[in-house]
Amino acid sequence: MIRVVILGAGNVAQHLYAAFLKQKSINVIQCYNRKGVLLHPNQNKNTITQDINLLKEADIYVLAVSDDAIKKVALQLPFKGKLVVHTSGSVPIEMLDNSNKKGVFYPLQTFSKDKDVDFSTVPFCLEAENEDDLKLLKDLAGSLSKKVYKISSEQRNVLHVSAVFVNNFTNHLFSVGNDICQEHNIPFEILHPLILETTNKITKMPPSEAQTGPAIRKDNQTIERHLNILSHASQKELYKILTKAIQSKYGKKL
Amino acid sequence: MIRVVILGAGNVAQHLYAAFLKQKSINVIQCYNRKGVLLHPNQNKNTITQDINLLKEADIYVLAVSDDAIKKVALQLPFKGKLVVHTSGSVPIEMLDNSNKKGVFYPLQTFSKDKDVDFSTVPFCLEAENEDDLKLLKDLAGSLSKKVYKISSEQRNVLHVSAVFVNNFTNHLFSVGNDICQEHNIPFEILHPLILETTNKITKMPPSEAQTGPAIRKDNQTIERHLNILSHASQKELYKILTKAIQSKYGKKL
Repeated sequence: MIRVVILGAGNVAQHLYAAFLKQKSINVIQCYNRKGVLLHPNQNKNTITQDINLLKEADIYVLAVSDDAIKKVALQLPFKGKLVVHTSGSVPIEMLDNSNKKGVFYPLQTFSKDKDVDFSTVPFCLEAENEDDLKLLKDLAGSLSKKVYKISSEQRNVLHVSAVFVNNFTNHLFSVGNDICQEHNIPFEILHPLILETTNKITKMPPSEAQTGPAIRKDNQTIERHLNILSHASQKELYKILTKAIQSKYGKKL
Repeated sequence: MIRVVILGAGNVAQHLYAAFLKQKSINVIQCYNRKGVLLHPNQNKNTITQDINLLKEADIYVLAVSDDAIKKVALQLPFKGKLVVHTSGSVPIEMLDNSNKKGVFYPLQTFSKDKDVDFSTVPFCLEAENEDDLKLLKDLAGSLSKKVYKISSEQRNVLHVSAVFVNNFTNHLFSVGNDICQEHNIPFEILHPLILETTNKITKMPPSEAQTGPAIRKDNQTIERHLNILSHASQKELYKILTKAIQSKYGKKL
C-alpha cells in the first residue's frame, strides 16, 4: 500500500485523487489546500487539512499546485527527508526544496474540470534523484497507466514545447477554422470528421508522411484564392507563414 | 436503383467505388480511366473502359479526377443533358461543361490509399443546378452517409480554406512537434494521447473555450524558455507568430 498526500485543489489534484481512489494499492491518507475544499464528493472531510503543519506521514507527497506555487509550498513543508514530487511539465526538479527528496510525477495530458480522465492511456513522465524513489514513482504511476516513462527535466522541457505546438497551437488553428466557418454561416461540425481523421492518421504514420494540401503541392492558384477569401489580416499572416514553413520543409524533397 | 458511372482512378474514385458496391440501391455500371485499371479487386473487367466515347447511359456521372483535369474531362464527354458532378472541394460548379447538367458531390474527408473509409460519418457537400438533380445527389450521398449538406460553391471554397487550417496546417504542427522530440531522442508517441484529447475536446466545445497554454496565460517566462529550447529559426518563427495570434485574439477578454 502506497500512502499518498495530495497538496493542491485544481484539475490535476482532483483527477489524480479520483484515479487513486479506485486503486486498492494506493491510499490517499490526506489532502491539503488553503480553502479546505474536498477533491471528490466521496472524500471524507477528516482527510482534508488547511494547515500545512498538520500533514501526516506518507510515502509520497504530491504537489499538484500551479507552477508558480511549487517552490513556495515545497519550502513550507514541515518535515525533512520525505519524497516530494511536483506534477508540472515545465518546472525543473531543482525547484523543489533540498530538505526533502525530490521527484517529478507529470501526467502528460490536458485535463478539463468536468470531464473524466481515462488514466490508463495517460503517459506519466517520471523523474527522481535515486533508483528507490524512481521505483516508488513507477509503482504509483504504473497502478494508473501502462505508459510510464523516465524523463529528465531537460527532456520534459522539450516535451512541453512540443506539447505547445501539438495542443495549444493546433487548438488555435481549429479556432481559426471555426471563425472562418462562422463568418460564412457554415456549421463547423462539417469539419469534425476531417479533424478526427487528421489526428488519427498521425498515430499510425509519421506526420511528415501524412502532409497534404496546396502548400506541399505548391498549388499557387489555390493558395492565392484562399488568401483572397480570408478577411482578417491575422488569418492571412498565419496562412502565409504556415504555407512557407511547409514549403521550406518539403521543398528539397519535391 | 441509381446507375452511376465513375471517371478517374485515384483515392476518391476507389473509395467511392468500394462504398457504392455495398449499397443495393446503387449500381456502378461502368468506370472510365485512361489506363483501364480496376478500382477494386472485385470489379468485373467488363465494367472498365479506356475509351470515353464508349460511356454507357447512367443517372449520374461522377468525375473523381484531379482538380486540373475536371474541365478537360467534362469537355470530352460524348453526350448532352446528363447529370455530371465533380468531387472537388475547391473547383467551382461552373468549371463543368454547359452541355450537361452540373453538380458537385464532395466528400469532405482526407483519404489514404490503403486505409478503409467509414463513409457513414463523412460529410457530403452537395450542389446542383435544380431541385431534381439535388434530390438525386441527396439520395446517392444519403445511401452512404447520415451527414449530407447543401453547400454553394462559395461556401465550399470557404470550407476548403478552413480545412487547410484544421488539417494541413495542423498536421504541420504535429510534424514540428515530432521533429523537436526526435532531435532530443524522445518518442513522439508520448504526445499521441494529448493530441487525441485535444481533438476530441473541440467536438464537444468551441475551440476558443478549449484554448490553454503559456500564450493565452501570457506566461512570458515560459515563452522565453521555450524559444531558447527551439533550435531552428523556422520553429522559433512559428512559435512567435502563433503566440502573438493567440494573444491578440484573447487579449481583450483577459
